[in-house]
Amino acid sequence: MSAVSYIEENKDRFLNELLELLKIPSVSADKKFAGDVRKAAEYLKSQFEKLDTHVEICETAGYPIVYAEHIKDPNLPTVLVYGHYDVQPADPYELWDSPPFEPVIKNEKIYARGSADDKGQMYMHVKAYEALIKTDSLPCNVKFMIEGEEEVGSENLEVFVKGNREKLAADVILISDTAMISNETPSINVGLKGLSYLEVEVVGPNRDLHSGVYGGAVANPINILCQMIASLQDEKGRITIPGFYDKVEELSDEYRAKMAEAPFDLEAFKKDLDIDDVKGEEGYTTIERTGIRPTLDVNGIWGGYIGEGAKTVLPSKANAKISMRLVPDQTSDEITKLFEEHFKSIAPKSVKVKVTPHHGGEPAVTPTDSIGYKAAVKAMEKSWGVEPIPTREGGSIPIVALFKEELGLDSILMGFGLNEDAIHSPNESYGLFNYYRGIETISHFYQFFTDMSKS
Amino acid sequence: MSAVSYIEENKDRFLNELLELLKIPSVSADKKFAGDVRKAAEYLKSQFEKLDTHVEICETAGYPIVYAEHIKDPNLPTVLVYGHYDVQPADPYELWDSPPFEPVIKNEKIYARGSADDKGQMYMHVKAYEALIKTDSLPCNVKFMIEGEEEVGSENLEVFVKGNREKLAADVILISDTAMISNETPSINVGLKGLSYLEVEVVGPNRDLHSGVYGGAVANPINILCQMIASLQDEKGRITIPGFYDKVEELSDEYRAKMAEAPFDLEAFKKDLDIDDVKGEEGYTTIERTGIRPTLDVNGIWGGYIGEGAKTVLPSKANAKISMRLVPDQTSDEITKLFEEHFKSIAPKSVKVKVTPHHGGEPAVTPTDSIGYKAAVKAMEKSWGVEPIPTREGGSIPIVALFKEELGLDSILMGFGLNEDAIHSPNESYGLFNYYRGIETISHFYQFFTDMSKS
Repeated sequence: MSAVSYIEENKDRFLNELLELLKIPSVSADKKFAGDVRKAAEYLKSQFEKLDTHVEICETAGYPIVYAEHIKDPNLPTVLVYGHYDVQPADPYELWDSPPFEPVIKNEKIYARGSADDKGQMYMHVKAYEALIKTDSLPCNVKFMIEGEEEVGSENLEVFVKGNREKLAADVILISDTAMISNETPSINVGLKGLSYLEVEVVGPNRDLHSGVYGGAVANPINILCQMIASLQDEKGRITIPGFYDKVEELSDEYRAKMAEAPFDLEAFKKDLDIDDVKGEEGYTTIERTGIRPTLDVNGIWGGYIGEGAKTVLPSKANAKISMRLVPDQTSDEITKLFEEHFKSIAPKSVKVKVTPHHGGEPAVTPTDSIGYKAAVKAMEKSWGVEPIPTREGGSIPIVALFKEELGLDSILMGFGLNEDAIHSPNESYGLFNYYRGIETISHFYQFFTDMSKS
Repeated sequence: MSAVSYIEENKDRFLNELLELLKIPSVSADKKFAGDVRKAAEYLKSQFEKLDTHVEICETAGYPIVYAEHIKDPNLPTVLVYGHYDVQPADPYELWDSPPFEPVIKNEKIYARGSADDKGQMYMHVKAYEALIKTDSLPCNVKFMIEGEEEVGSENLEVFVKGNREKLAADVILISDTAMISNETPSINVGLKGLSYLEVEVVGPNRDLHSGVYGGAVANPINILCQMIASLQDEKGRITIPGFYDKVEELSDEYRAKMAEAPFDLEAFKKDLDIDDVKGEEGYTTIERTGIRPTLDVNGIWGGYIGEGAKTVLPSKANAKISMRLVPDQTSDEITKLFEEHFKSIAPKSVKVKVTPHHGGEPAVTPTDSIGYKAAVKAMEKSWGVEPIPTREGGSIPIVALFKEELGLDSILMGFGLNEDAIHSPNESYGLFNYYRGIETISHFYQFFTDMSKS
């Protein structure tokens, strides 16, 4: 039996196993779910055990890493699969049509927190592996490294990787945690942005004040914060932090022309989001803005009275969470430093400003002439009948840069998600088509990679 | 016995009665305290009953008005006392050194929500009245109108006043709900600002988005809201809404010189608030900015993820509560309309904006040549030995304009509070000195008012 036939025969069980995993609320950002995060790791371990595969729960200072391996022959190439079993917080719960941890299938999609990011995508690899070994058609070695802290910065993964270079030795890393252009237009992500994330606090008076008694005479930290945030971008949509663009790679006209060939329907894009206009850096298209240009977003802002009704308060402080997506060759530490210096320098004397950096990540670009990339192209072409388009995305997967630096390995971002999956949002979903097509395509990858590695 | 001696003899009971009133959490803004608000009204009623004074609980569509009267002789002048028994919400509770509804006396001050605004100040009038009738020295008629909705806009007071013009007929209205310059420098408030209060909502995409996938391409409603708010004021601290200053009374140099004579210690002001610099409209002093210039403050702002840690969301919407303090001859409806039109006009096409007005109020100025004002000046001079300074304040007491319009009466704002009372803030307090001095001064007022009315 071929691996593809095996997948077809076992598709219901493959789906049910994923649904069971989705029921576990493995929210790494919130300590109250600590038991569930571990439960997800244990579940994964038991699935490998059912396949008689060597698997370990590797403890860290935080959540464990599930490591599994099948060494067929040390002389064969080794594929290292990375994924994560933790998920984003699901709030606000009231915006979900069905409970985030009670998966339902609607319109051929699996609705649950983590269905696309990353459980659905990660579990495809486990099932592709199963299909290959059960049909005795796995042509190389496989290692799995599935962590539980991706949504909170993978702090302990770094320690694990640095301390286990030999154990993790491989020839390529395979990751499914990104999206394709559409179900008809497969694509492979060859560029991810970096991330710089900071929290800022503007403090005015040492206590909340009556806005009549003091308004107009004392700097209002909310007004000041708004002014400072507004000044971070000019009317052309460019970020005004000095030095911000210094290291940004300006791509050639040819490269940009190639990017522009990817199908993109601006009207459908706007309609899907119900907006009358897109907005971004002047001189760049929507695809370029999200793919190759650095950006800045305020992710959260709060200050003063935010309850029901009116309260005439001039508050003591105002806060915001601000993040920037970075492109080569910007670096997270440098941009974070530039932001902090600039933000403090533009604060008027009437307030005090505090800047607290959060975890960041480096931008990463995959070379398209590598064996791994070419094998992925072939695998997708075999499944779809058309070559996938190389794309550059706005998301950040900080560990990709980590793997390059510590293990010397490129990561192939062969993802099967879609933008409509609404990852990080309410009503996240993952298509059944994508789940099954992904398992099949991944199973093709191994043969192409092994064959190409020989020559 | 003189009224002043009576006050001295009964000071402990006067204080204990106030403390009992302060224990009642009569928070009008929060329905969960509805029973307590009524309890405060009943308590007040019982205090009048102990003085054999005619008192009624006048029901409204909301909280009742406590009406009491002592008509000595219809031919004598009548003083109408206004106050309120409801209080501001006390949250955030964790910032209070002692629970807001468990009054404590520390450093000669009564710490409790409502101690200054308005229970302490209002109850002084009840005790001054008691001292006068118990010593048979009340020279005129007195009426009391104490409402329970001042902190939420006095909606039903308007209905009550319009429907009870005869009942409320008087010669002057006396209100204690403002502050003096200091305990050594008595002052009378001759000008209050108006209020325009609105809530705004900026909506971008129809759902929260991943800020990597969409950031830089889709307008972020928080960034947009910040830009719109920042644009409401220019670098000279002037509000940029077209037409905003059209009706603003520019005061004469002489008037401003007189205002400048009031003692004001800028260093102490900054030190008290722990700020390195004040901030406001260029060309005006701190006193002028709070007293005679219109102002704009953001009272609350929220949007996106505001919990612990990092979440890379590009949120669907962002909100703010914005209010403006108005001066003669601006009107609340007109300014509210100007704000709404302007705010909507500056919204970029990439977002949708909603503006919701809240209750407002008109500015009010008391003529200093009136009998009521002059009597208040004499009363304070008798207690302090110096004439009080006329001041103009930033706060709004919307019903003052209502009383002028519906009853044809000027309100004398003879308040005994201090800025350090921290009304509307945690750790609100009212000085024992102020409580007792106020009762004494109010008792003097009646005689001066009656004498001056005869001539």
